[in-house]
Amino acid sequence: MKTHTARAFGATAATENLKELSIQRREVTSNDVEIEILYCGICHSDLHAVHNDWGGTTYPIVPGHEIVGRITKTGEGVTHFKTGDLAGVGCIVDSCRECNHCHDGEEQFCEKGWTVVFNSPDKKYGGMTYGGFSESIVVDENYVVHVPDTLSLPQAAPILCAGITVYSPLKHWKTGPGKNVGIIGVGGLGHMAIKIAKAMAATVTVFTTSTSKAEDAKRLGADNIVLSTDSEQMKMCPRQDMILDTVSAKHDVNVYLNLLKVDGSLVLVGLPNQPLEVGAFNVVKGRKSFSGSNIGGIAETQEVLDFCAKHAITADIELIGMNDVNTAFERLEKGDVKYRFVVDMQSL
Amino acid sequence: MKTHTARAFGATAATENLKELSIQRREVTSNDVEIEILYCGICHSDLHAVHNDWGGTTYPIVPGHEIVGRITKTGEGVTHFKTGDLAGVGCIVDSCRECNHCHDGEEQFCEKGWTVVFNSPDKKYGGMTYGGFSESIVVDENYVVHVPDTLSLPQAAPILCAGITVYSPLKHWKTGPGKNVGIIGVGGLGHMAIKIAKAMAATVTVFTTSTSKAEDAKRLGADNIVLSTDSEQMKMCPRQDMILDTVSAKHDVNVYLNLLKVDGSLVLVGLPNQPLEVGAFNVVKGRKSFSGSNIGGIAETQEVLDFCAKHAITADIELIGMNDVNTAFERLEKGDVKYRFVVDMQSL
Repeated sequence: MKTHTARAFGATAATENLKELSIQRREVTSNDVEIEILYCGICHSDLHAVHNDWGGTTYPIVPGHEIVGRITKTGEGVTHFKTGDLAGVGCIVDSCRECNHCHDGEEQFCEKGWTVVFNSPDKKYGGMTYGGFSESIVVDENYVVHVPDTLSLPQAAPILCAGITVYSPLKHWKTGPGKNVGIIGVGGLGHMAIKIAKAMAATVTVFTTSTSKAEDAKRLGADNIVLSTDSEQMKMCPRQDMILDTVSAKHDVNVYLNLLKVDGSLVLVGLPNQPLEVGAFNVVKGRKSFSGSNIGGIAETQEVLDFCAKHAITADIELIGMNDVNTAFERLEKGDVKYRFVVDMQSL
Repeated sequence: MKTHTARAFGATAATENLKELSIQRREVTSNDVEIEILYCGICHSDLHAVHNDWGGTTYPIVPGHEIVGRITKTGEGVTHFKTGDLAGVGCIVDSCRECNHCHDGEEQFCEKGWTVVFNSPDKKYGGMTYGGFSESIVVDENYVVHVPDTLSLPQAAPILCAGITVYSPLKHWKTGPGKNVGIIGVGGLGHMAIKIAKAMAATVTVFTTSTSKAEDAKRLGADNIVLSTDSEQMKMCPRQDMILDTVSAKHDVNVYLNLLKVDGSLVLVGLPNQPLEVGAFNVVKGRKSFSGSNIGGIAETQEVLDFCAKHAITADIELIGMNDVNTAFERLEKGDVKYRFVVDMQSL
């Protein structure tokens, strides 16, 4: 396989700061596109992976999975992109393409396991994948989406992970007019969920522990704000059809299960690394569910980008240079960002 | 309100044995039927309530909520029953009759809370309700079901709680041909679930920790038996569409979440009194749900009785006399019954 050197930014050990690295990208093969990366969002998963919080990290690691850029080269078999097109890459860069889930366009459920954009063994070409903290990336066109040009590009980057991660369950659990939808947490995922659920015409209730974020949730489109530390406010809260839980730390889910209507679902999209305790009566009474959801397929990623373009939705971001990434990681760990860091890759 | 004395069997304190008591039953009002109780099943909930395990027990308590008997008197407004009819009473003896759930025949979700057949404040007539460990009971005909005469009466009694408790979620989660349905635990609920899921034409896999019950599960109709303590058997187990969890003690649900297909549900019908730990990745990966379900409405209770009559399904029981109930409670606590105690009320 022919490769070329690309500049990137990554970590060589869990305890080390990220720094500039040289990596190898393959030359485009028949179905590949090469993308000049313009912007890349920073997600909490990048932090977890770099720090090896979930185990299994291979170093060096180049994180980044909210990638927006411009096509610079196309393989001869590429049919959906041409040089100069805007393009996006999210978490998934390959899958088996043969199982029922891949056929249904739900590659996130691929039976053989999909290839993550970074720190994933590349089943086809060998070696590990490197993510979006890089000047360029080469991806099979089937795993690349079009980024509508009406969207602000840096603000669109987080749609590739934060956006699809909340859009997919909101849609799956039938968010729409007449539905009460709760969002727990106002962060990278939560702030996108408020905007998207509102655009889906649901009545949106935001649960937060922070009075400062309560203010902001209103601006983001929430109909009701509930300070979850205030038991009186929790008691008075209208019953919800579905509550999307974006919290990534251990927390009490039972208080939210109790706020669901009959047949309601509390859907976790955060990834706390400790198990959550569910009381039997809290699900048994009212036939409730504690469920989970993880990103979405390629077709649905395109769908959320188009939905966001239609409804003029983008992320609230803080645009940073590549050299600010270590500081950004520290601030992200403390939840100190409103609401997503995005790296301007021109700064690499 | 006019009342009469009825003989019953109950407890006057959490620490006392059950013994013969005299209680007051109301005279039939317009919509009531009086039922001579022939058989009454014993459910783990009776035990929990008598021992005040969940708190809130009022003494004296007369348990029993799997009641089969014969109509001995009808109010002048009664239209669906006549003297001499076989009749069944389960958990629910009243509800608001006004909310959407009551209108939909799902009284178990009544917004104002339904009246339990025993140890429940009687909103209409005052005092507390007394259950089926009694020679007779008076119930509004709208909360009474017909017991098909082709069923063995003592063996039909457990359908009123164990039967409906497993039938309702099996139906709600679309058990049927081509579906893989798992049942955790072979006890009062579990053994009925095996029979009912099999009659619904699903492929039934039973999970048990007991080699002796593994043998029995096959006889009850299971297609596959998995010894849940054997990690190799668990690993080789086919993925399930839905798993019904009948276990009432604290246990690890994550090993079962991992056996579900994409969009699968683990549905708890047991009532452990300690919370269960759910790992985030176990629901997030594959969009899975940890759900619960509790009994069913009156219409569905009639439905499960008719379903059981059609498929010749009854409970495997040990028929006992009223005076054996304290020993039966002790054995039930140890899980020493195959698979339901039923009291012959003639022995009172």
